[in-house]
Amino acid sequence: MENRRDVRTEVNQEAFERMTGFDPVLEAIKPAIDVVPGMTRSTILTSGPPMPWGRYAGGQRFGVVGGALYEGLASTPEEAEAKIDAGEIRVEACSTCGCVGSLAGIYTASMPVFVVRDAVSGSVSYCNFYEGHQPKRLNYGVYDDDVRRQLDMLRADIAPVLAAAVEASGGIRLKPIMTRALHMGDELHSRNTAASLLFSRELFPALLEASPANVGNIRPVLDMVTQDNYFFLRLSMAAAKTAGYAAQGVAGSSIVTAMAFNCCEFGIQVSGLGDQWFVGPLPEVEAQLFEGHTSDEITWMGGESIIAETVGLGGFAQAAAFPLQRYQGGSPQKMVEANLEMYRITHGEHPEFRIPFLSFRGTPTGIDIFKVLETGITPVMDIGIAGKGGGQIGAGTVRANIGCFEAAVSAFQAQH
Amino acid sequence: MENRRDVRTEVNQEAFERMTGFDPVLEAIKPAIDVVPGMTRSTILTSGPPMPWGRYAGGQRFGVVGGALYEGLASTPEEAEAKIDAGEIRVEACSTCGCVGSLAGIYTASMPVFVVRDAVSGSVSYCNFYEGHQPKRLNYGVYDDDVRRQLDMLRADIAPVLAAAVEASGGIRLKPIMTRALHMGDELHSRNTAASLLFSRELFPALLEASPANVGNIRPVLDMVTQDNYFFLRLSMAAAKTAGYAAQGVAGSSIVTAMAFNCCEFGIQVSGLGDQWFVGPLPEVEAQLFEGHTSDEITWMGGESIIAETVGLGGFAQAAAFPLQRYQGGSPQKMVEANLEMYRITHGEHPEFRIPFLSFRGTPTGIDIFKVLETGITPVMDIGIAGKGGGQIGAGTVRANIGCFEAAVSAFQAQH
Repeated sequence: MENRRDVRTEVNQEAFERMTGFDPVLEAIKPAIDVVPGMTRSTILTSGPPMPWGRYAGGQRFGVVGGALYEGLASTPEEAEAKIDAGEIRVEACSTCGCVGSLAGIYTASMPVFVVRDAVSGSVSYCNFYEGHQPKRLNYGVYDDDVRRQLDMLRADIAPVLAAAVEASGGIRLKPIMTRALHMGDELHSRNTAASLLFSRELFPALLEASPANVGNIRPVLDMVTQDNYFFLRLSMAAAKTAGYAAQGVAGSSIVTAMAFNCCEFGIQVSGLGDQWFVGPLPEVEAQLFEGHTSDEITWMGGESIIAETVGLGGFAQAAAFPLQRYQGGSPQKMVEANLEMYRITHGEHPEFRIPFLSFRGTPTGIDIFKVLETGITPVMDIGIAGKGGGQIGAGTVRANIGCFEAAVSAFQAQH
Repeated sequence: MENRRDVRTEVNQEAFERMTGFDPVLEAIKPAIDVVPGMTRSTILTSGPPMPWGRYAGGQRFGVVGGALYEGLASTPEEAEAKIDAGEIRVEACSTCGCVGSLAGIYTASMPVFVVRDAVSGSVSYCNFYEGHQPKRLNYGVYDDDVRRQLDMLRADIAPVLAAAVEASGGIRLKPIMTRALHMGDELHSRNTAASLLFSRELFPALLEASPANVGNIRPVLDMVTQDNYFFLRLSMAAAKTAGYAAQGVAGSSIVTAMAFNCCEFGIQVSGLGDQWFVGPLPEVEAQLFEGHTSDEITWMGGESIIAETVGLGGFAQAAAFPLQRYQGGSPQKMVEANLEMYRITHGEHPEFRIPFLSFRGTPTGIDIFKVLETGITPVMDIGIAGKGGGQIGAGTVRANIGCFEAAVSAFQAQH
């Protein structure tokens, strides 16, 4: 038994080094149809371990239908449902196409996506844009005229100017931004304030270079990048996803390389266990709700932003982000305790992502399914909270249910 | 005795409210000669409680002489010294002219200064520009061709573009930037990384508006504002100084409204004790020196950036700035302890400057000379360290010597 553990530790070290050694670069911004593998004009992507369409419910189902309406694949929700049933509109999991979904994670063909490539492993991930701070958003299961207008504005006004700037820049390295942001109060999941500013700082010169004669276009882009403090979230998600991909497929490794929700389940992928999702029950939430909302409104619509926690960010770096108390509740002491606990279920300490309050200790990185089972400690995650009526109603921390880890360990033991 | 204390507490509350209720606005950037009261073509300003010229020594004296050379008031150091002795060149304390000096704090007539006005009290303060990260700077007691070129560049290339942007902006409010920066790892004295970025964010649209046809000028300005992470220090100093002025002159108040070094002494001003400086010995330093330097090189050249600590920032907000460990040494635990200790010598908790790690407790603000004497606790301050050969050789924290507080309390008791 000890021998097996030693072998696993060595193999996990390989996965850990691939996961932490990544060098993600924002290469381009393009319509999903032009770059996302497997994307078609009639594909809608959504978050979480894949399920038959019949199981999608509530906000996540509304989101998929809204995506079909937005893309002009149907004129009414009923028509969209019928076309999905008939297979004329294909509903796929983000993860099967290299994408990573925020909340419901709705992608359609014409949406602009960030293209992020890990210069070390060559793995690529795609993420669409943050929709803005208004509670009603497609990724929170709402589709109406306001949501459509905002998505149109992102597609028509923001993305082309940003795309030209990214092209002029020759690519923007994201890891230095992420590393610095951890020293400026971000944990790069529920707080991306500093990272968004640092990104805008990298972007300014490229914006000027790309649009010197048209500075009038630049102002709304800058506002979008910096006003809401969440713009960078989609870049940190795509970056983190390339790290997850880099660590995937190390034979014999028990390191988690992806975590995701759909509206029914929480699931994980494990480096040495192929592309299979191991699923279990949804977690319990400790939420701080926006004024006027109550906990019986809380619902699940999916979410893959917890790729952050998978690679040593978010809840695993919360002692770098004490200001989060205001957004998601908790106390500094609880944040430190929860953060420290994650060292007990991870393979190592991140060589570059460091926490000033912990004397610049590296963040706990590389969740080992065996350590989760041995300690009974499950990953802590910083997430946004969706309401049954659609829209964001708060934020909080959740603890994964241990079910999917048990399932993964069983599968692992059956193979080894 | 208790009765006197009650009266003092009430009066100090008035000073505290003036100090914390300020609303500093960057109104303009102009040559010192155009705006600084009392400035003449042949005036050189320098940091700290005023002294006869004969007492200025080492780097601070070199700095004044360098200022005379830079301004073309003399061709050689010998000529500068002779003209100062003859009264043809006037050496004055920054504080007598509304200025606030960083380290040696050398101001000459042609140097650009920030003009910051407290919209509440109307008090105005001026601060010149951060020279850049290179160790050799005029304010660290060095004057050579490199220093001159850098000062020329600031005066000729950076200041005019920035001045036009500030004018186009209609004024930039600094308190919101300062308040946010405290949630992003800054304490606004030895760390101004986030504030510099936030300032650049405010500035960028105004830069575009002011120089739309000349975007080539904007890039070096943006680099200057954001690359070194200290650009905002001079703005936080000027802003803090307006708060100190606002709290000055409350009859019967024992609140400290200014602290400053010159090369010989540490001194304070007290709200209810007029413009008099109460001076005492220089403090001991706990320094982290840059590689290749030793503690016997440490020297004093003056400094007024500790206006930050005077108004509840810097060392009084260090638990907001754990990344400072890398720059000035110490541990997170020591930083928290030192920060907490400051609550024992201050009148109250700042209503807007808050520390996320302390559950958003307001920073300890308004040093009360009586509390210093009763507790024996003196202010802790985050400072840059100068070397005897000139230039910055490190950073660290210092504790004020109690001498000047004793002197101030004696004066206070003699009056009341």
